Amino acid sequence: MPEGTDIFKEFKEHSVAEFFKKNKHMLGYSGKVRSLTTAVHELVTNSLDACEEVGILPDISVSLERLGDEHYRLTVKDNGPGIPPHIAPRVFGKLLAGTKFHRMIQTRGQQGIGAAGVTLFSQITTGKPVKIITSTGDGTVWEMEVMVDVTKNEPDVKSKRHYPGDFRGTEVIVELKEVEYNRGKYSVYEYLRRTALANPHVTIRFTEPDGKITTFERSTFEPVKIGIEAKPHPFGITTDDIFSLSRIAKSKTVARMITSHLHGIGSKAIISMLHILPRELNKPPQELTWEEAERIVMLFRLLRTMAEKKRDFDEKEGIEMLKKVLGKEIDEEKAKNLLNILKEVKIRGPSTDVLIPIGKERIKTSLKANLKPSFVSVVERKPKVYYGGIPFQVEVGIAVGGKIENFELMRFANRVPLLFDSGGCAITEAVKSIDWNRYGVDVFNAPVVIMVNISSTHIPYTTAGKQAIADVPEVYNEIRQALMEAGRKLKEYTSKVHSINELMQKKKILEHYLPFLSKGLATLTGKDEKVVESTLKSLLEERYKRLEELMKKLEVESA
Amino acid sequence: MPEGTDIFKEFKEHSVAEFFKKNKHMLGYSGKVRSLTTAVHELVTNSLDACEEVGILPDISVSLERLGDEHYRLTVKDNGPGIPPHIAPRVFGKLLAGTKFHRMIQTRGQQGIGAAGVTLFSQITTGKPVKIITSTGDGTVWEMEVMVDVTKNEPDVKSKRHYPGDFRGTEVIVELKEVEYNRGKYSVYEYLRRTALANPHVTIRFTEPDGKITTFERSTFEPVKIGIEAKPHPFGITTDDIFSLSRIAKSKTVARMITSHLHGIGSKAIISMLHILPRELNKPPQELTWEEAERIVMLFRLLRTMAEKKRDFDEKEGIEMLKKVLGKEIDEEKAKNLLNILKEVKIRGPSTDVLIPIGKERIKTSLKANLKPSFVSVVERKPKVYYGGIPFQVEVGIAVGGKIENFELMRFANRVPLLFDSGGCAITEAVKSIDWNRYGVDVFNAPVVIMVNISSTHIPYTTAGKQAIADVPEVYNEIRQALMEAGRKLKEYTSKVHSINELMQKKKILEHYLPFLSKGLATLTGKDEKVVESTLKSLLEERYKRLEELMKKLEVESA
Repeated sequence: MPEGTDIFKEFKEHSVAEFFKKNKHMLGYSGKVRSLTTAVHELVTNSLDACEEVGILPDISVSLERLGDEHYRLTVKDNGPGIPPHIAPRVFGKLLAGTKFHRMIQTRGQQGIGAAGVTLFSQITTGKPVKIITSTGDGTVWEMEVMVDVTKNEPDVKSKRHYPGDFRGTEVIVELKEVEYNRGKYSVYEYLRRTALANPHVTIRFTEPDGKITTFERSTFEPVKIGIEAKPHPFGITTDDIFSLSRIAKSKTVARMITSHLHGIGSKAIISMLHILPRELNKPPQELTWEEAERIVMLFRLLRTMAEKKRDFDEKEGIEMLKKVLGKEIDEEKAKNLLNILKEVKIRGPSTDVLIPIGKERIKTSLKANLKPSFVSVVERKPKVYYGGIPFQVEVGIAVGGKIENFELMRFANRVPLLFDSGGCAITEAVKSIDWNRYGVDVFNAPVVIMVNISSTHIPYTTAGKQAIADVPEVYNEIRQALMEAGRKLKEYTSKVHSINELMQKKKILEHYLPFLSKGLATLTGKDEKVVESTLKSLLEERYKRLEELMKKLEVESA
Repeated sequence: MPEGTDIFKEFKEHSVAEFFKKNKHMLGYSGKVRSLTTAVHELVTNSLDACEEVGILPDISVSLERLGDEHYRLTVKDNGPGIPPHIAPRVFGKLLAGTKFHRMIQTRGQQGIGAAGVTLFSQITTGKPVKIITSTGDGTVWEMEVMVDVTKNEPDVKSKRHYPGDFRGTEVIVELKEVEYNRGKYSVYEYLRRTALANPHVTIRFTEPDGKITTFERSTFEPVKIGIEAKPHPFGITTDDIFSLSRIAKSKTVARMITSHLHGIGSKAIISMLHILPRELNKPPQELTWEEAERIVMLFRLLRTMAEKKRDFDEKEGIEMLKKVLGKEIDEEKAKNLLNILKEVKIRGPSTDVLIPIGKERIKTSLKANLKPSFVSVVERKPKVYYGGIPFQVEVGIAVGGKIENFELMRFANRVPLLFDSGGCAITEAVKSIDWNRYGVDVFNAPVVIMVNISSTHIPYTTAGKQAIADVPEVYNEIRQALMEAGRKLKEYTSKVHSINELMQKKKILEHYLPFLSKGLATLTGKDEKVVESTLKSLLEERYKRLEELMKKLEVESA
């Protein structure tokens, strides 16, 4: 008989730092080039977030020195608000700690893992701490060296000193081994280039190991307005969200809890809802049961269905849903009355204030300036909601022809370029799923750049390394919708190009036969051949004026 | 002036349970069908691991009941060793706790996340705890209900009772909402079918929601021998590994620490190494510095290069590496002497005892029984080592023709089928990277099944959801090597098929002209036409006996 209990003598708990140390590839640390790009990515996104949070136009400098074989020193310096000295050790020395996880606000970072992940990678390849020089601009500069105590997932401060200084911002200096720098597709250079492309308000100064300095200058001096903190949207809310909320909410009734903690529910809406679920909504939150919370969620689903289907709303389906909301059979007449009450409910869509898309015009300008294409089609969709009531918004830009040479897909999330893990990304899948021939271009074999940016208070990344979007149905479908909408605009363009090509073909043929025709006509009419030819030519030009007009029109559209 | 410190008033720490609750897709919970398959996957792999750890032939029963719209009850029961009652709450109620993370042993689970992840998903969709009925076979059965306290990442035991009973094993009952069952490509059914395919020693009984019972019976009664615990292999060890080890090792010298904690270093090897780094290896581990640990790792790299290149080993490169090991210039004569000493060092390859591949014969039998192909090519590579000294081994089976209809890639890791995230998996990338036409088949458009299994004490999964292999260079290259080796075997077959086809073509032509030829010959020789024809026919058969032989040979090879 096997001794069942023996195998559990090794039962242990381990820290999240140990987990990610052993699975550092989950943080993006795999491969020499990628690991370096990941470290830059984490520090630069933190700098950008910090600047934007306080409305500063970001000036970031990134510098790489080669110290030896696969051995570099990375310095990232910003003009941000600085980090208070009692906070900095945890930012860089503890995973799952930060300002962003608990708030429903659109920032690039969202997990509280990135900065400490850089420290972790540095210390396991070089044995050295990360050095932080920071000041909030109060005249005191703090300088400290921090490591992660892996077993405890706690910061291990190796040194800490302060001195007077007139500086505001943060400088992070970190040594990395087992990394390599080049200028390829997955490099720091490409990462920063794309960051500049999606963030025209940022100036980045990059010093390469050979001393070459590239400055990506800002093209707009308007700081990016920081998104306000979102409330979960009722259309994506889950039972667990409502139930968990009810356990901590201080509101007197569930109805009040809902109006103050969820997005877009006014007093008129809640009064209508009280007609449907008076008992549940009038009780104190602490007494709400799971089943009652489920009913409230079911009611929101019914309202969502009504809002989405509008006139196509099927009353029979509505009555069925209403039965589930009430948890019992209901008289048809009464049901119809209740549905009529609900028809009056207006729940506002996800607020545009909480999301910070790049913007249609900025995408257009950026694509034109950077790619010199012959046509650009840009789509900015309205904010939508996914599971958990989380708002998100999709933007798509398609640039065609001109100086573009090959197909390229540029993925962004909250304006951060995603260079890696393309194969496992919902954006890639969505692009592949479209039948592009319907829009007149076999994009994968044509000079086309497709740019997709997703903005959200919580991007559903596949991993903590944040390089690919997970297969969340609502997000995937919305990307597809955006691509098809951009595709339809593209179709108008490709159709016109097609017409022009046909006309030009015809004109060419006529031009080819013009001399023979002139000769014949001259003989027949006895007129001078040259005169006949020039008359015919101007007739031809007249006839094909439309061609020029069309071409001009195309240029205007793309302007 | 922006107030820098204000943005940090929200600085908070969050638990790993909160992190995964918010990012449940990272655990595999995204999509209705996938979420259900993920839950089954986690519970079944835990059952298989438990059985194999104590040498029990696993009998697993999986049962799904439909309770309502997108609402199911899942029961997984095993005949394993049972879970001690003081351990069970943490297995199901705390993430990053378990028996597997700290040990370097090949099990399906390796993170201590899976079981508690099921609890988490269940409670956020149904609000209910998971129910565990378990006994170690000591006459007492324990029944308990467990949830995860998300804020603390600690188990929250809702009920616990025990009663006498004659039973050994574990039964887990869990309710799930927002999931859907079907029999498709990503279903529980397909998952269990593939599990049976790669684990012929397991019997799985599956009850579908409609009551249909499928039993995947074991085809071998030999229990899978559990791998022994591995030691990290010096060829993949990192400085951090050596340095961290030195801080906890109780050995008197670094040399002894190395021989007792790393794999495959005998006393002869360490004596040779002592010639190179006497100071570093003779000191107490606690006094080893990071730089000294780096030198030891550099020495292992030199030894690895020598072992891999053998006669092609370049002495000049060796001297350069030696300089780095010693951290100083060295006289050429002396360097050559030291290299000669190192040439005698034998470090054993990764032990086959620690890895449990499916096995060449089992793969062959399994592919033939399940797919009825006309040819099978199987390759089992020797164990290799990746970053961190972690041993791994790749197996590849390619089945062609017969009853196979389309191309299919079947990915496995430690005999667990990987159904999802195919796009982001190193196995998929490796298969795509091969120029299959060189091996005579355009596999992606042919009736071909490629099966790849990776065995390791720590599979480098891309996410905690464990569905794709990360892009670790050593692993990716080794998969490619295995595929090409299998490809070469395939090439022999496809060449033969090609010859046979050519011969058959020729024979057909001759057979076609045989009657005319016979007629002519009969007229010429005055012999009876029928006699001539039968003589010619037997000559033809004689001539093309080779064809039959070849065909027989092919059948034998594939047998």
